[in-house]
Amino acid sequence: MIKVKIHVTLRESVLDPQGTAVKSSLHALNYHEVQDVRIGKYLEVTLEPTDRPIDEVVKEMCERLLANTVIENYEYEVEEAVTK
Amino acid sequence: MIKVKIHVTLRESVLDPQGTAVKSSLHALNYHEVQDVRIGKYLEVTLEPTDRPIDEVVKEMCERLLANTVIENYEYEVEEAVTK
Repeated sequence: MIKVKIHVTLRESVLDPQGTAVKSSLHALNYHEVQDVRIGKYLEVTLEPTDRPIDEVVKEMCERLLANTVIENYEYEVEEAVTK
Repeated sequence: MIKVKIHVTLRESVLDPQGTAVKSSLHALNYHEVQDVRIGKYLEVTLEPTDRPIDEVVKEMCERLLANTVIENYEYEVEEAVTK
């Protein structure tokens, strides 16, 4: 079994209203040292090895479903998990 | 400026309907090798150094606002960013 950790984040140039809201809430709680908050998604996908290279499969899944590449970037790390 | 990367994930025992939905969508796209998907949040918080230790500040922010510790775990990494 292979575990893949995927980060999907908004591109730098794209506004992040959710992050702005969290920043305001942190300021309201007196964390005035907070300058910026950006929020993204974190996915852990567990999959069985196939004939295709894992990098190819993961990139394709990200491009087709997990990330909207017009406004989002993705990064991933592959971890070979212990066989169950 | 300090950059903190925070992962907020659902505890193992908590159902993840969003992850289940993504898994179904991946199966529908013929990625039958996918066994499990868990979805969490990823936050990048930029803050100015204060008198208090950064670990204390970050933990407190997570406990008070960013994570619901009843159902979620959090992990963080601190990165000293380049001074602007």
